[in-house]
Amino acid sequence: MTTTAETPAPPAAPAILTALAERISAFRYEELDDHARQLVRTAFVDTLGVALAGSDFAGIAAIRTAAGIAGAKEGSLVLGTAERVPTLDAGLLNGVAAHALDLDDGNSAMGGHPSAMLVPELLALGEETDASAADVAVAYAAGYEVMVRLAYGLNPGHYKRGWHPTSTIGVIGVAAAAARLLGLPAERTATAMAIAVSHAAGVKANFGTMTKSLHVGQAVRNGLFAARLAAEGFTANPGALDHQQGFLPLFQGDSGYDAARIVAGLDGAPLACSERNPIKIYPCCHSTHGAIEAACEIRGADGFDTGRIEDIEIVVDPNRMPHTDRPVLTEALSGKFSLQYVTSRALLAGTVVLADFDGDAHRDPATIALMSKVRVLPAPPGGKPNSFAATVRISQTDGSEFSATRDPHLSENETTVDPPVLWQKFEDCAGRVLPAERVSALGEALRGFPDTETTVRELVRLAEVHPHTDVEVTS
Amino acid sequence: MTTTAETPAPPAAPAILTALAERISAFRYEELDDHARQLVRTAFVDTLGVALAGSDFAGIAAIRTAAGIAGAKEGSLVLGTAERVPTLDAGLLNGVAAHALDLDDGNSAMGGHPSAMLVPELLALGEETDASAADVAVAYAAGYEVMVRLAYGLNPGHYKRGWHPTSTIGVIGVAAAAARLLGLPAERTATAMAIAVSHAAGVKANFGTMTKSLHVGQAVRNGLFAARLAAEGFTANPGALDHQQGFLPLFQGDSGYDAARIVAGLDGAPLACSERNPIKIYPCCHSTHGAIEAACEIRGADGFDTGRIEDIEIVVDPNRMPHTDRPVLTEALSGKFSLQYVTSRALLAGTVVLADFDGDAHRDPATIALMSKVRVLPAPPGGKPNSFAATVRISQTDGSEFSATRDPHLSENETTVDPPVLWQKFEDCAGRVLPAERVSALGEALRGFPDTETTVRELVRLAEVHPHTDVEVTS
Repeated sequence: MTTTAETPAPPAAPAILTALAERISAFRYEELDDHARQLVRTAFVDTLGVALAGSDFAGIAAIRTAAGIAGAKEGSLVLGTAERVPTLDAGLLNGVAAHALDLDDGNSAMGGHPSAMLVPELLALGEETDASAADVAVAYAAGYEVMVRLAYGLNPGHYKRGWHPTSTIGVIGVAAAAARLLGLPAERTATAMAIAVSHAAGVKANFGTMTKSLHVGQAVRNGLFAARLAAEGFTANPGALDHQQGFLPLFQGDSGYDAARIVAGLDGAPLACSERNPIKIYPCCHSTHGAIEAACEIRGADGFDTGRIEDIEIVVDPNRMPHTDRPVLTEALSGKFSLQYVTSRALLAGTVVLADFDGDAHRDPATIALMSKVRVLPAPPGGKPNSFAATVRISQTDGSEFSATRDPHLSENETTVDPPVLWQKFEDCAGRVLPAERVSALGEALRGFPDTETTVRELVRLAEVHPHTDVEVTS
Repeated sequence: MTTTAETPAPPAAPAILTALAERISAFRYEELDDHARQLVRTAFVDTLGVALAGSDFAGIAAIRTAAGIAGAKEGSLVLGTAERVPTLDAGLLNGVAAHALDLDDGNSAMGGHPSAMLVPELLALGEETDASAADVAVAYAAGYEVMVRLAYGLNPGHYKRGWHPTSTIGVIGVAAAAARLLGLPAERTATAMAIAVSHAAGVKANFGTMTKSLHVGQAVRNGLFAARLAAEGFTANPGALDHQQGFLPLFQGDSGYDAARIVAGLDGAPLACSERNPIKIYPCCHSTHGAIEAACEIRGADGFDTGRIEDIEIVVDPNRMPHTDRPVLTEALSGKFSLQYVTSRALLAGTVVLADFDGDAHRDPATIALMSKVRVLPAPPGGKPNSFAATVRISQTDGSEFSATRDPHLSENETTVDPPVLWQKFEDCAGRVLPAERVSALGEALRGFPDTETTVRELVRLAEVHPHTDVEVTS
């Protein structure tokens, strides 16, 4: 039976996913300029480091047991081990590891973390397919294009409403990147993204618990799954984004969405040539970094004495508050999303470090005593929209007062595509699970990335952790 | 380090998930009255039948390949085979099979399909844990309680907005049912549901494609995963439902949500003692059944002649339209969500059957010609809210006119908890993959369910399909 003349004309092609798919399936490595290549290199260096450091996150053992993930002869590396598991499972575990410490890079348009999604994905799929560095760089740019463009159309409302953009928007970008690496044609790429739409999930109510990094792992797994399904001929609606019961209307914020912004300038250079992903130096929610920096500034002021603090005010953009105004901690991880906690730690210790979110750290009496003096207040209207700046004001029992305002977006690691702190951070992070000479070898292989002959398989082999033979491991 | 006197008091216990968890973790088999036991039996009989019939759905092979699901020595049965795979994967594949034909039961409060979620889940987990029939009946009631109560608080707005309640609400119920079958305490049960909140996904834009039944399979898998994670000590926010950035505000419809309705009367009898799950006799969206029945009535009227049809009007509640007003089909599956298609099929053939949604059925020229004469119109305001009734009006070229109105909710299979068509439907469905004597044996084992000594493992063994030895298989 074939289509006949009576067949009504199909409706106009659903624009957005198809347009995105056509553009990214045509991306070429040569379109990635110096900025884009630096951005991709920074993403892989930073994310590989934090994922290695996060690979012993307590939740990962539970995930392996609960999902029944067993080692396999072939497959993709589980970071922090020398073991291979099926590619989807490697995406799950390494996605969790990349985000577990809340130390991975972010993109401010996205209000989320593109590299914690894309790097674990592309290492896992790239190892399986024996991809070149250039292949995964193009795939990174493709996934990034989709994530950031979707965010242009939905944010800040989507973020503000309570969705976790890293996973909700990110899963669609992961599907796009996998489709690109698998070399799927545009029509199948659009279908992969449409399948991923039905996997968009993750709410901010679970921030400060193990489930937050699970969002990332599951979204990496599901995005990879979506692309593989599309490759197998699975069907979905390429209009799933713009349909009245599709992604945009369902995941919009109070101010709606702007479909035109998603595709504006799509025929120009990839966004990787102009966007930035600031890297983190504090292992906690980016929305708290301004307060940490302001607290550190006050701590160094003449006459300041933590023992005489009477009252602490933290003033932030209201968009920061629903997930970080957290006066009481339920577990160490919840400290990552508590302005009260991280500001108190910064005042007491002069910085915020990974150990502040481990074990019973959140039960420290001195910190709890200081937290009880904190009030978090919304900044008055009229400032920079969706700002990450914070003002900390402290009054002491002797009547003296201190105040500092800091915007982390003005710091060097936030304004540079290849920031100076990158390599030191990488060595610190990777050095938590790898011996020093392996950190050096891995760093050496990454220095020329993605303009290098080193394949993903070779790179991944350098990242293997052999606990029995790696006797020099430092932690 | 231990908690000190300075620790601020924790906030008031998050009400909803904790309250639900405390109630369902205390469910006893003796609380299930005759109505509830019939409801559970009907759910298992009907769902097992349609899942067997749906086990050769074209998408399942793609899912197995894409997810890399390999057979295992131990695990749970893949329906339609005699093979075992890991429990989570069995939940995925059998969840898809149960929903693939759009022939599984539904609950009108939920606006979705509780048994396509719960039965595949409980067969897989019950086989693994060697559960009794009574164990899985209690677990079914626990998951059902959560699904239907959440729907009380969110629907019809949640459904109307474009979410797929079967998977969005259902994943939380699956986690609850698994927690109950695993015997988790209330606190861990609440955490299981909180983890599941972060997996809630599925949009109606993908109805009419393979991705719709994938919603169900993935939600079964993820709900099982959530419960296992909770059993392993994973953390989530038990307030993830009522948090300002949690499930209720994010998944509400235009008219908001009603938290009080979710827990009203929670200390009374389980909802399984009073609710109903009408079973389907047409393998397509329930929102189209009124139009099918009205079309069948007109087809039998004196003077009616499909060859003389000039114009067809289908009038339905506006809530039915976004997903079923579909004048053009993109694949055979999309016919399941097309009032134009199923009404035309009913007018031409006097019924709607599985073959109408297979292969190239949607390209039949006579059907396409009739579809072009259909207009779908919204019922005027003032009728029964969220009605499933439909009016079909047909004018013929000879000037004669026909009209019929049917509400499928008034039919016998919709108003009876153990409807007369159940066993014939079971035999038809199971007989598509099982030889006749095996259908009888399985039916026999199910007749006394759940008041039976037959365990889940014994039941599942009877459902095995052995293609090489089952030479009598009819399809």
